[in-house]
Amino acid sequence: MPLSQLHFRQNDVGVNDEGMRDLRFDIELVEAQQQLIQAVNTLEREWVPLEEARGRVVAEEVTARHDLPPSRQAAVDGFAVSDEKVLGVKFRLLEANVSPGLMLGAGEACTVVTGGLVPENTRTVIPHENAEVVDGYVAFSREVKLGENLKSAGEDLRGGTVIATPGAQVDSGLISVMAAFGYHQIPVYRRPRVGILSLGQGIIPWQNEPLPHQVRDSNSPLLKSLVESDGGMAAAVEIAGEERSSLNRRVTEMLGKIDLLIITGGTHAGEYDEARQLLDNIGAEMLFWGVKIRPGGHPGAALWDSRLIICLSGNPGACMVGYHVLAAPVVRYLQGLPPFIPHIKAEVTNSFNKAGGPRRFLRAHAEIHGNTWKVEVLPGQKSSMLRSYINCNALIDLPAGHPPLEAGSEVSVILLNLAHSAIYPRRKEQTTGGDPGNVRLPGDHQPV
Amino acid sequence: MPLSQLHFRQNDVGVNDEGMRDLRFDIELVEAQQQLIQAVNTLEREWVPLEEARGRVVAEEVTARHDLPPSRQAAVDGFAVSDEKVLGVKFRLLEANVSPGLMLGAGEACTVVTGGLVPENTRTVIPHENAEVVDGYVAFSREVKLGENLKSAGEDLRGGTVIATPGAQVDSGLISVMAAFGYHQIPVYRRPRVGILSLGQGIIPWQNEPLPHQVRDSNSPLLKSLVESDGGMAAAVEIAGEERSSLNRRVTEMLGKIDLLIITGGTHAGEYDEARQLLDNIGAEMLFWGVKIRPGGHPGAALWDSRLIICLSGNPGACMVGYHVLAAPVVRYLQGLPPFIPHIKAEVTNSFNKAGGPRRFLRAHAEIHGNTWKVEVLPGQKSSMLRSYINCNALIDLPAGHPPLEAGSEVSVILLNLAHSAIYPRRKEQTTGGDPGNVRLPGDHQPV
Repeated sequence: MPLSQLHFRQNDVGVNDEGMRDLRFDIELVEAQQQLIQAVNTLEREWVPLEEARGRVVAEEVTARHDLPPSRQAAVDGFAVSDEKVLGVKFRLLEANVSPGLMLGAGEACTVVTGGLVPENTRTVIPHENAEVVDGYVAFSREVKLGENLKSAGEDLRGGTVIATPGAQVDSGLISVMAAFGYHQIPVYRRPRVGILSLGQGIIPWQNEPLPHQVRDSNSPLLKSLVESDGGMAAAVEIAGEERSSLNRRVTEMLGKIDLLIITGGTHAGEYDEARQLLDNIGAEMLFWGVKIRPGGHPGAALWDSRLIICLSGNPGACMVGYHVLAAPVVRYLQGLPPFIPHIKAEVTNSFNKAGGPRRFLRAHAEIHGNTWKVEVLPGQKSSMLRSYINCNALIDLPAGHPPLEAGSEVSVILLNLAHSAIYPRRKEQTTGGDPGNVRLPGDHQPV
Repeated sequence: MPLSQLHFRQNDVGVNDEGMRDLRFDIELVEAQQQLIQAVNTLEREWVPLEEARGRVVAEEVTARHDLPPSRQAAVDGFAVSDEKVLGVKFRLLEANVSPGLMLGAGEACTVVTGGLVPENTRTVIPHENAEVVDGYVAFSREVKLGENLKSAGEDLRGGTVIATPGAQVDSGLISVMAAFGYHQIPVYRRPRVGILSLGQGIIPWQNEPLPHQVRDSNSPLLKSLVESDGGMAAAVEIAGEERSSLNRRVTEMLGKIDLLIITGGTHAGEYDEARQLLDNIGAEMLFWGVKIRPGGHPGAALWDSRLIICLSGNPGACMVGYHVLAAPVVRYLQGLPPFIPHIKAEVTNSFNKAGGPRRFLRAHAEIHGNTWKVEVLPGQKSSMLRSYINCNALIDLPAGHPPLEAGSEVSVILLNLAHSAIYPRRKEQTTGGDPGNVRLPGDHQPV
């Protein structure tokens, strides 16, 4: 719905004069998150080289190609024998490598290696440390049991066993297991290409020296790094700059090569709202404008030719919080991950005096001590402040109308740097993907 | 000390016939870890571009270059006025940008932007949503307070404030704060260059199709990925292969271009021990051989021209555990991180029947539920098995002589994928670096 057909209203009511997607003003965060996820699809699948796949998200079930081990094998480096009694016997050492079909005669031994084939009638494998080789014969220093140091075919993994399900994040262990089956590539979801546009007035590239009326763009490097740490690619990073006449063209060009655009700055309400003006100019369909969170400014979202645009405040505190609660879920969902991070409980170690107002997110530092999470409210909580970025690895999530926070109380926390595998209950079924506007968000995709 | 001068002994006693570094056999893990860390130095410092520094470790204190904001600024986009009373007044809107020295007259207002300069005598800034502009005049819809929406110079960060200390890992927030001060580069420790050598018999590149007596090398891709996820670079990955005559030369060439060599395979005890033979052939000085852990095989360590060599079992389970408890601390320490990861407490959700023996590490899956860690012993705990790699994100650390593990009991756990910032208590002072052989390991560098 074009902006020009709308009147700005400070309420919750959707506007749907033309049967189009409801545009809502000043909505609850949960509703905003749900709208964002419903507006996008998990990206298409692609095959990537196995050793470059760490952190990517598995898009198709991967199974064991064959039994592992594929046949009976030695579990240690040593000697295979078929005899029942070995102590006090001198075994003749065969010189050949083990080949399929080889049988040991009584009183014969042959050298075998860990993970290597053993003669078909091997009874046991005796490690080197219990053996002494002299002149082509080998003697053993202890008696052995049937099957000792032997691995049966498929004892580790049976052929056909599922070793990765869609939605699993590729880690070093999976890479190793897939390498053991000779998989050269792995099917994963494409990484989202994210554009970042700094729209604020007087914002200059952070590499430049600002004049008195200018401010270095610290939001773009923040968002670029966050997008990358969340598995996305910062495919285009731009600053609107002084020359605004070409802005519409530059933004539509940018949108042509990305999956998600994050705009920072220019999101204050009212007639000077540059972000909304820009969205209107390029013909984007607005989803919502204003979310009841603090810090927040006036975050909004729109669709342009199926690309999602998320507008965040230019104030650093609000930009960071807005990224984590609105943009990061989309970055995760696009690549096949559950969008929303389950909260943890933690004990807050200091106090925070403000109270009331909408749902509030405090930049915080979380640490685990034994089995307890402790979280500290960082200094510099004003929306304009960068100071709270230092050591920030968590957000404390305070409900609307919360009382002042007292040291020692339990709070709900979003950890920002915890591996997905540790924070999501393990999933048994695929839950990613879905049709926009018709997606049923399964259990672990519900906003929290 | 060359291997040839030593006799293999199954005890704890160091050998120091020539006043050289003690070589110890079958030592406790804590002693092995301490020896490894004492044998290396944190690597030299280098400057890297700010936007490429995420995950790197800060090597020099970084301070705020100036006050932030550098001067008094607007906290919102809106209008600056110097008058005390604004409601019911029509202010003449100045057209010029704010420049240093600008003063507002009574009844005058000027447009200001978030983070931008304000006229010197600004009393307050009124946001756009409380303003209406008509014909070069602006009127405001509410009264304001002194200093509202104004940021004083240095209110966020005072010039000279420390924003990063040596040992801090660079995250998105620090990148943003440093960008705000126009730092183009950041001083960090060099990333360790790690070589990986698969020494086992019959081991072939995992990309190839194995013959019956051959096994795909699943250890190299595991170690490569683990090294990279721990911040190192897998600078050389080799397989000893069938052609062993050139092996000594190949290994010394490899050592010439790396900081740490991890050898996997060929570490069983006794006269056939290829790894020890190789170390002897190239003239490496042995540090220890055999560590009392399970799974473990016979891990060992040596020094060659100040490069550390760590030998791990070729059995997958032992290779993974050996990496995490012996090699990963070195990879971390070389780049300026605390080497040892504090353990957490978790409730184990299933049982494990084996008991006794040396200190034992179980491959496990840890998850956080609210404020409780739960950990599951993964299937496939045999040293030879890869199956336990699937979903492995933790090691359960059982003490020597432990009883069978019962579901519901509390265990000590090493989390493998948790961000450093969440697992180390925040450090107030530099603790990295030091002289090998004479290093005092500070509190958080003690093996645990």
